[in-house]
Amino acid sequence: MSDSPLSDLAIARNAVLRPIEEVAAAAGIDAEAVELYGRYKAKIDPAKLSAGPPSGKVVLVSAMSPTPAGEGKSTTTVGLADSLAKAGHKVMIALREPSLGPILGMKGGATGGGYSQVVPMDEINLHFTGDFHAVTSANNALMALVDNHIYQGNELNIDPRRMTFKRVLDMNDRALREVVIGLGGPTQGIPRQDGFDITVASEIMAVFCLAAGVADLRERLGRITFGYTYDRTPVTVGDLGVQGALTLLLKDAIRPNLVQTIAGTPALVHGGPFANIAHGCNSLIATQTARRLADIVVTEAGFGADLGAEKFMDIKARVADVAPSAVVVVATVRALKMHGGVAKDRLQEPNVEALAAGVANLRRHVRNVEKFGVTPVVAINRFASDTQEELDWLLDWCAGEGIQAAAADVWGRGGGGDGGDELAAKVAAAVAGPGSFRHLYPLELSVEDKIRTIVQEIYGADGVDFSVPALRRLADIEKNGWSGLPVCMAKTQYSFTDDASRLGAPKGFTIHVRDLIPKTGAGFIVALTGAVMTMPGLPAVPAAMRMDVDDDGNPVGLF
Amino acid sequence: MSDSPLSDLAIARNAVLRPIEEVAAAAGIDAEAVELYGRYKAKIDPAKLSAGPPSGKVVLVSAMSPTPAGEGKSTTTVGLADSLAKAGHKVMIALREPSLGPILGMKGGATGGGYSQVVPMDEINLHFTGDFHAVTSANNALMALVDNHIYQGNELNIDPRRMTFKRVLDMNDRALREVVIGLGGPTQGIPRQDGFDITVASEIMAVFCLAAGVADLRERLGRITFGYTYDRTPVTVGDLGVQGALTLLLKDAIRPNLVQTIAGTPALVHGGPFANIAHGCNSLIATQTARRLADIVVTEAGFGADLGAEKFMDIKARVADVAPSAVVVVATVRALKMHGGVAKDRLQEPNVEALAAGVANLRRHVRNVEKFGVTPVVAINRFASDTQEELDWLLDWCAGEGIQAAAADVWGRGGGGDGGDELAAKVAAAVAGPGSFRHLYPLELSVEDKIRTIVQEIYGADGVDFSVPALRRLADIEKNGWSGLPVCMAKTQYSFTDDASRLGAPKGFTIHVRDLIPKTGAGFIVALTGAVMTMPGLPAVPAAMRMDVDDDGNPVGLF
Repeated sequence: MSDSPLSDLAIARNAVLRPIEEVAAAAGIDAEAVELYGRYKAKIDPAKLSAGPPSGKVVLVSAMSPTPAGEGKSTTTVGLADSLAKAGHKVMIALREPSLGPILGMKGGATGGGYSQVVPMDEINLHFTGDFHAVTSANNALMALVDNHIYQGNELNIDPRRMTFKRVLDMNDRALREVVIGLGGPTQGIPRQDGFDITVASEIMAVFCLAAGVADLRERLGRITFGYTYDRTPVTVGDLGVQGALTLLLKDAIRPNLVQTIAGTPALVHGGPFANIAHGCNSLIATQTARRLADIVVTEAGFGADLGAEKFMDIKARVADVAPSAVVVVATVRALKMHGGVAKDRLQEPNVEALAAGVANLRRHVRNVEKFGVTPVVAINRFASDTQEELDWLLDWCAGEGIQAAAADVWGRGGGGDGGDELAAKVAAAVAGPGSFRHLYPLELSVEDKIRTIVQEIYGADGVDFSVPALRRLADIEKNGWSGLPVCMAKTQYSFTDDASRLGAPKGFTIHVRDLIPKTGAGFIVALTGAVMTMPGLPAVPAAMRMDVDDDGNPVGLF
Repeated sequence: MSDSPLSDLAIARNAVLRPIEEVAAAAGIDAEAVELYGRYKAKIDPAKLSAGPPSGKVVLVSAMSPTPAGEGKSTTTVGLADSLAKAGHKVMIALREPSLGPILGMKGGATGGGYSQVVPMDEINLHFTGDFHAVTSANNALMALVDNHIYQGNELNIDPRRMTFKRVLDMNDRALREVVIGLGGPTQGIPRQDGFDITVASEIMAVFCLAAGVADLRERLGRITFGYTYDRTPVTVGDLGVQGALTLLLKDAIRPNLVQTIAGTPALVHGGPFANIAHGCNSLIATQTARRLADIVVTEAGFGADLGAEKFMDIKARVADVAPSAVVVVATVRALKMHGGVAKDRLQEPNVEALAAGVANLRRHVRNVEKFGVTPVVAINRFASDTQEELDWLLDWCAGEGIQAAAADVWGRGGGGDGGDELAAKVAAAVAGPGSFRHLYPLELSVEDKIRTIVQEIYGADGVDFSVPALRRLADIEKNGWSGLPVCMAKTQYSFTDDASRLGAPKGFTIHVRDLIPKTGAGFIVALTGAVMTMPGLPAVPAAMRMDVDDDGNPVGLF
């Protein structure tokens, strides 16, 4: 791998972009389905496509348990697609949109890196086509309408102490985590305890990403439970009667956004729900639109395969037939060494022993993928510090385990270059093979048993224990008729356990479910294990301090 | 005037729109300066225009003191421009963008009405090109960064009890007017009293609309005072060092948006600050861009001429040479009767006596315009209930007073039809005449004397009295070196006095200044008279209840 002397932003800016109409035409998108947003972004109206129904095969890019070093999942997604395109496949990428809040806090975006990026990365990482702003508006319109309903007489008998829905901002704003609103006297509202989440944590974002179309969007919005009455009956958006208005606020945002990679591969970048309290992948509409246009769709799920891939299979792939034909499990030598017990500041040093110890983490993820009847392919994302000995050891280990694997340097050499050729060949072979996809559990299982199945089969836990509030919530879920929903686990991404510090492939542990949150619009029950942060904070020196615009109007300090 | 059987939305949807590239080309906008946002909206990059410096003449559309019935200022602006275009003038409109919040509350937008609308009105009234979302993001990024600074050690010694800047949402959300934030313990921030304004009330919106370009935007953002230290020294965005990041968040939004009227006249719709605590007109960049492209620019200022026109002359026209060559004062028979003492529910009845009594309101506005050395033209915006006798009386009265006036039916017949021919002719004649524009007061006057000049010369008051807090604030303004700024009056739009119920042209009254707010980024001192609502609420039955999307993806119930 070459040590690129250029920043991601510099590489992205040096790229020669094709006008997005040309990218669209090459992808088989009819001109009348293209709505331009500037020169290099467009919204695509699926209703105006002459392409047939979704038939492209899905490659899901997931990962081993991530470490703070970053494994390069988006970079691999982009580079793999570029390599597949270079090999002559008709390929399209489906990716999540980045959230603005974290960008102002920490350096780094979500558009890939090095020579494997979607561009224009600066625009995608800032306001893009406004989709997240539309979700923010819809979410906050709902809450303004709810609090107004209470203020105007509360015909629905909503209990202000039992609200389960919050306002959101696409901002890392610690001070808004816990607030009291409605102060100031009789003309200012009804005081109540409240809080703000970041926009990607909104159930409306999850709904947006699971909706099959506008009609389904409206229905799902109507099914959102935002609180309970004084006699503990769930109250939905449909009860309030504002699902139409929320749909109106989302009607343009719901169309997928077309951009391109540096190598010119078409990419639909659309939606971006949290990967803990939601399912963590791009919109279903983007995935299905890509499947109408391409033979192979490369997409990504948040966090490691225990979370992102499991949710993709058991939540998203139940809503529509988007089961993957292959799952790429991204691994790095550095991350495996960390799982083998090496401290973060010593990852540069060669250490085959640690690698051999840490590889158990990768093995469990790979075997998990096989439980869904899907072929796993390990992508070893190369870093400059990797030694040839380490790489060889890891490839040998995969071969010995009968695991398809390839090293790739799509960051340094690009998938459009020769950085991902071998990976692409292995993925193409896996995709061509026979598939026998199955969900991990049937929906008929109780919520308790669904959770038990996931923690035992996927995490390798001995079992699960439920807190007293969680047990009460299980009873409520039963009573309200929500038992048939799939489960969305909110667990640390860093460990198979619910303790972020237990790396590798631990055994002999129990998963503790602290609480359950029914997301009746999105259509899943969130199981909270440990604390989940739904409104991040800013660091002591936020990235925003270095940001600016130069005299030519270009961003400075963005990455 | 014809009684149009169609809703504004239906008329707008029936309109045949030209692709916005064609509108741009016809307006002399170079293709490389056009960034498309869908088919009928575009952002224009002023830096890529080959047109010369701003030289077009400005027609400012203002009004008599408004009544709850609505006088049709935006409709007149659009219709007048269409009529001027029809008469062969090279015309461009510069208009404010509507705010989303009120649209969810009350029926009615800000894009004109009947056959005098800018289109696509539904998109303009919803998210448009995302400018307001960018302002919301910049505003809330600032406040997240400020509260984070306090949380991380508060090096700047900011006093959390003396913050003067709030977070904003583009939403009517009463429950957020007064809140307590930062609750939840040591890791969640520093608790403090706070509140949310609607986005159009953000000082960043005012800055956005007064900035001459990106460099000036950055400087103005840096000058914003968001609070005070424990020793009462003002703290600015520049002190925090985040003006660059805020500029980055606004860099695309700052380019004006091109749309068209139903008759095809080009319109730049851009920015929209409050007309009470800010100056209430579209961005300076839009006005100046329009003046580079057209011979006549028709623009609008919020509220009546005592507020909108005065601020245009004394605030905006000091930042750049945009002094109007003519001011159109929109009046209606209905509103004049209301100022003459008729109740709202009896305005349909013919009543020349009330008209004769109410006309004093119009006279004072017209004479005020003359004090700036600018020619006034009265536009009588016709309503179906107006009798010929009433109209004749009013036109005779104007003639007798030596006031240029014309009746117009641009709502029913359109300015592209024959609804505004006579008005256009009178305005064109006024524009062609010699101008001798002057500001009402020199900046060297003390803030107290500037306020006294406005209330005596424009409102007709005997004088002004300052509350004890306002007097203290006057001393602070002096101490902090802000005395050279112009004044932005926040007063009820319904009366020349600070009591909304005193209609007509009252005499023998005093204006009460309750408080003063220095807006050091926007560059004016707001004088508050009476209560000013900076976060509206929703009504008992919000318009949102009727909104939806039909099966073809078109908005339902928007207007």
